[in-house]
Amino acid sequence: MVAGARLRTAMTRLTLDQLNALPPADFVAALGEVFEHAPWVAEAAAAQRPFATVAALHAAMLQAVQAAPRETQLGFVRGHPELGSKVARAGALTDASQAEQGGLGLDRLSEAEFARFARLNAAYRARFGFPFIICVRRHTRDSILERFERRTHNDPQAELAAALAEIGLITRLRLVTLVDGPGAPKTDGRLSTHVLDTLHGRPAAGVRVELAEIGVSARGLLGDAVTDADGRTEAPLIAGAPLRIGRYELAFHIGAYFAAAGAASAEAPFLDVVPVRFAIAEAEGHYHVPLLATPWSYTTYRGN
Amino acid sequence: MVAGARLRTAMTRLTLDQLNALPPADFVAALGEVFEHAPWVAEAAAAQRPFATVAALHAAMLQAVQAAPRETQLGFVRGHPELGSKVARAGALTDASQAEQGGLGLDRLSEAEFARFARLNAAYRARFGFPFIICVRRHTRDSILERFERRTHNDPQAELAAALAEIGLITRLRLVTLVDGPGAPKTDGRLSTHVLDTLHGRPAAGVRVELAEIGVSARGLLGDAVTDADGRTEAPLIAGAPLRIGRYELAFHIGAYFAAAGAASAEAPFLDVVPVRFAIAEAEGHYHVPLLATPWSYTTYRGN
Amino acid sequence: MVAGARLRTAMTRLTLDQLNALPPADFVAALGEVFEHAPWVAEAAAAQRPFATVAALHAAMLQAVQAAPRETQLGFVRGHPELGSKVARAGALTDASQAEQGGLGLDRLSEAEFARFARLNAAYRARFGFPFIICVRRHTRDSILERFERRTHNDPQAELAAALAEIGLITRLRLVTLVDGPGAPKTDGRLSTHVLDTLHGRPAAGVRVELAEIGVSARGLLGDAVTDADGRTEAPLIAGAPLRIGRYELAFHIGAYFAAAGAASAEAPFLDVVPVRFAIAEAEGHYHVPLLATPWSYTTYRGN
Amino acid sequence: MVAGARLRTAMTRLTLDQLNALPPADFVAALGEVFEHAPWVAEAAAAQRPFATVAALHAAMLQAVQAAPRETQLGFVRGHPELGSKVARAGALTDASQAEQGGLGLDRLSEAEFARFARLNAAYRARFGFPFIICVRRHTRDSILERFERRTHNDPQAELAAALAEIGLITRLRLVTLVDGPGAPKTDGRLSTHVLDTLHGRPAAGVRVELAEIGVSARGLLGDAVTDADGRTEAPLIAGAPLRIGRYELAFHIGAYFAAAGAASAEAPFLDVVPVRFAIAEAEGHYHVPLLATPWSYTTYRGN
Repeated sequence: MVAGARLRTAMTRLTLDQLNALPPADFVAALGEVFEHAPWVAEAAAAQRPFATVAALHAAMLQAVQAAPRETQLGFVRGHPELGSKVARAGALTDASQAEQGGLGLDRLSEAEFARFARLNAAYRARFGFPFIICVRRHTRDSILERFERRTHNDPQAELAAALAEIGLITRLRLVTLVDGPGAPKTDGRLSTHVLDTLHGRPAAGVRVELAEIGVSARGLLGDAVTDADGRTEAPLIAGAPLRIGRYELAFHIGAYFAAAGAASAEAPFLDVVPVRFAIAEAEGHYHVPLLATPWSYTTYRGN
Repeated sequence: MVAGARLRTAMTRLTLDQLNALPPADFVAALGEVFEHAPWVAEAAAAQRPFATVAALHAAMLQAVQAAPRETQLGFVRGHPELGSKVARAGALTDASQAEQGGLGLDRLSEAEFARFARLNAAYRARFGFPFIICVRRHTRDSILERFERRTHNDPQAELAAALAEIGLITRLRLVTLVDGPGAPKTDGRLSTHVLDTLHGRPAAGVRVELAEIGVSARGLLGDAVTDADGRTEAPLIAGAPLRIGRYELAFHIGAYFAAAGAASAEAPFLDVVPVRFAIAEAEGHYHVPLLATPWSYTTYRGN
Repeated sequence: MVAGARLRTAMTRLTLDQLNALPPADFVAALGEVFEHAPWVAEAAAAQRPFATVAALHAAMLQAVQAAPRETQLGFVRGHPELGSKVARAGALTDASQAEQGGLGLDRLSEAEFARFARLNAAYRARFGFPFIICVRRHTRDSILERFERRTHNDPQAELAAALAEIGLITRLRLVTLVDGPGAPKTDGRLSTHVLDTLHGRPAAGVRVELAEIGVSARGLLGDAVTDADGRTEAPLIAGAPLRIGRYELAFHIGAYFAAAGAASAEAPFLDVVPVRFAIAEAEGHYHVPLLATPWSYTTYRGN
Repeated sequence: MVAGARLRTAMTRLTLDQLNALPPADFVAALGEVFEHAPWVAEAAAAQRPFATVAALHAAMLQAVQAAPRETQLGFVRGHPELGSKVARAGALTDASQAEQGGLGLDRLSEAEFARFARLNAAYRARFGFPFIICVRRHTRDSILERFERRTHNDPQAELAAALAEIGLITRLRLVTLVDGPGAPKTDGRLSTHVLDTLHGRPAAGVRVELAEIGVSARGLLGDAVTDADGRTEAPLIAGAPLRIGRYELAFHIGAYFAAAGAASAEAPFLDVVPVRFAIAEAEGHYHVPLLATPWSYTTYRGN
């Protein structure tokens, strides 16, 4: 339902078997972009083939970064683009970075937001000497800003570790997108719902459900769906991608549903559009948020 | 909690016994304003004293209107001010009319709203020859506009009856405000809440609750309260006045409550501010809207 | 979980294709027992082969019964064994009848129950001239007795139709057991549960759940299970067979669960074993009966 | 509703003012029975008059016991009757003791129960040299037996303290029954219910509710009631007495209610009699156990 959930199957992916068999130069050509401007990471991993799982390949690449001298690590980190910077607007990003930042609308910042990001970027860079790095596909603007503010207070050692941890999350996503193989690390989250009509003791079919992000800095409808005969939406509300950490609202149009069933006034029902607000804190979690409703009452909860 | 709930006890009221004993001219002076510019209604009632109840007094006054010739009725109805008209702005209202229209903010209309009311007033008057009358203290702007549009399609006979029915509601409120006596008709509604902490099996004390009107044409906070040791607010959210027919939202700050109790993350709790949206359709009804909550689930319903 | 749910896959079944290709005599030999002591039903169906679905085969057999003269129908109905009669105890049943009556314990009646069945059998036979027929695998003793009493008041025409309808249900089950093919009519019901821990916002794993029949004439534990990491039982509580129409109780041991999680007193928790009592009225329905619980509250409902 | 809740107002009680003014001998005559066979306790308290509150009077009497030499305390404790002993059956109890033990049915023990109590009494007395004392009006048989077993393992010093603590509870109840004055200690518990019809969004009127004790050693109906227009029972299910610590079941007849309202099948409704089982652990607590129900779902919780 949500546009941001990209379909991996539409892309041409290499299999892990193919990668294990490639000449080293081709292997580096295939995976060199996974770690930003750092083909040496892929080179180090090439020598350790074959890999039994995608997770093992990723671990070997991360290990290469961890094993590098601190100066190399810093140079690598410095090679990343700034969030919301002029650079991000000018199109000098790798394709992967562009897609990730675009998904959240970081390329469509208002002047005030742009100024806030610029101020944070400047303060951060002055303190640490490298740009702020975060796996944007796991975040809303709100959670990025919240972490940006917080991480600016880290000590340099802790912050280098935090930046490398985020690079681990970013590259894990890139690798899963590029490589088709067994043992892929879990990168997807899932948001689903289910509407029960406890007036009639049956699934509520035909209920319109809207999902919106209700962040401070970005709000708006992410998508909508209508429940099927089973009271569920045909597909999960979000799937096939990490959930963005942030605040959301599901709006269930039960007034129209019960009016159509002849069970409530169409004019001014006690309950009409029922809003359920909740936070997503785990990008790879499964959030099931059902509604049990009558025209006069409802129950909601985090299910599974 | 809600400012619009006027305290009758602060006013000097006549007792029914006093009214029963007054010379007719004084009786008419005391109640002449109840029916707008129509002291003849009080005159007719004066002759039928004594009244055992306030309701009986009101019924006698209404009966005088019903018994009047149609031309007298039309003249009486024509003597009422227009809603949101220039007249309403210029201060030519009776004091009672002013208070009633001011309570809803009809004297603070935007230009667009003013234009809409003016257009409706014109269409209505062109069709019926008298101004649109509604008991504004029982309504929000939304429900006034909705009924204004709808009643414009009535046939003239039905609409005269509708106008007189509204005058019955208006004068009932005025009479209850002016007269202290037994058998007063019910004019008050009540909105109350109650928060149960089903995590600990006890009332949730110290939960902030906000009440807002969420109409299309007027939105905004009506008041707030904090639950006491019993999980209730010290006073009902609305009482001592009719409820205004319309749409409302209660916002329960349970995230802060459970964080203070050490039972939920203070940073990004699954549930933080829980909104409950509902319609009030009966101005004199009792609406009890409780919340049973844990950090991960809640139930709400129309209780009593 | 429930012993009565027989596994069809363990039996040697003929495929519909095989049946369509058999010589007529072999076809009748294979299916002659489906309609009690009435091989002529299979003979009539043999002539209409091939059948595309199991449902079509069953419909053709039922049609042969419907098309038979009334005397033939009566003779056919008279050929069925009496419920709970001496005949039922003496083992003169077809194998299929024995399995069906044994499943419910009709062969283990107490003296008083046996007397009641005998009295009903006698009254029924005196009125209609044939034995009471009901698809016992869809019923508990209570629902059999309730229908037995009720149907004794039918007029003879309606009761012959009722007996043939039950034979339709009985033979449908027999056919599905014997024949492996597409388009099998739905004969299975399903009872499942799910336990949500709304104290922690997660599935409740390790909760003991017991299922009992709570009929008037037969009560007792049907089985038990423990919820898995998903809050569900490994298999549905009942599946692979019709549900028996009757009254049931699920007992959820949430006191022990919350005590183990450190969330409730182990000694005298407010809620310990939560009983949920419900009726099953549709033998082929899906009954999902979940529990959302904290140590102090719970919600249950018919879900799906 | 429950017969055990004795009405204090039907008794002739002394006021605290009267007690403060009595000659010492009359004061002792009035309160000498409060502490079993120990008028010296009342004598000690007489000297400290006047008392401003009933609680202060009780505290002074307890203080006299605490200040007594250990041998006097032991003698006092030894003067109490044994629970369920031959003595209890023979009628040699003070009137107050008889009423208290009779309320629970300790005078109607079966032979097996009598033997179990006798065995516990013997073991206890062999270990401590005095009879087992417990405030029976705060307990069911189950909780008495549970504590009897447990306290038998105490060391003698702890057990003497436990016995005196129970005497504090017993005499508090006796004093509140005898003396009418301000500052009475809280001795009453309360069990109440409320039934909400969330199908129609209104109180459920006319629902039969039964309360039963579901202990291991004593089970049975304690009383029943029918909900009024407000969905409540006219009086609390238990009030005016301590609650007996133990396990209970409320049975709500919602099937009949919804059938009468035309909202559910009268024949085999999914929900018929809804049982809610819970433990009472605080004899002086307020237990409110409401039910929110539709024909297909319900919610219950400990409210207030």
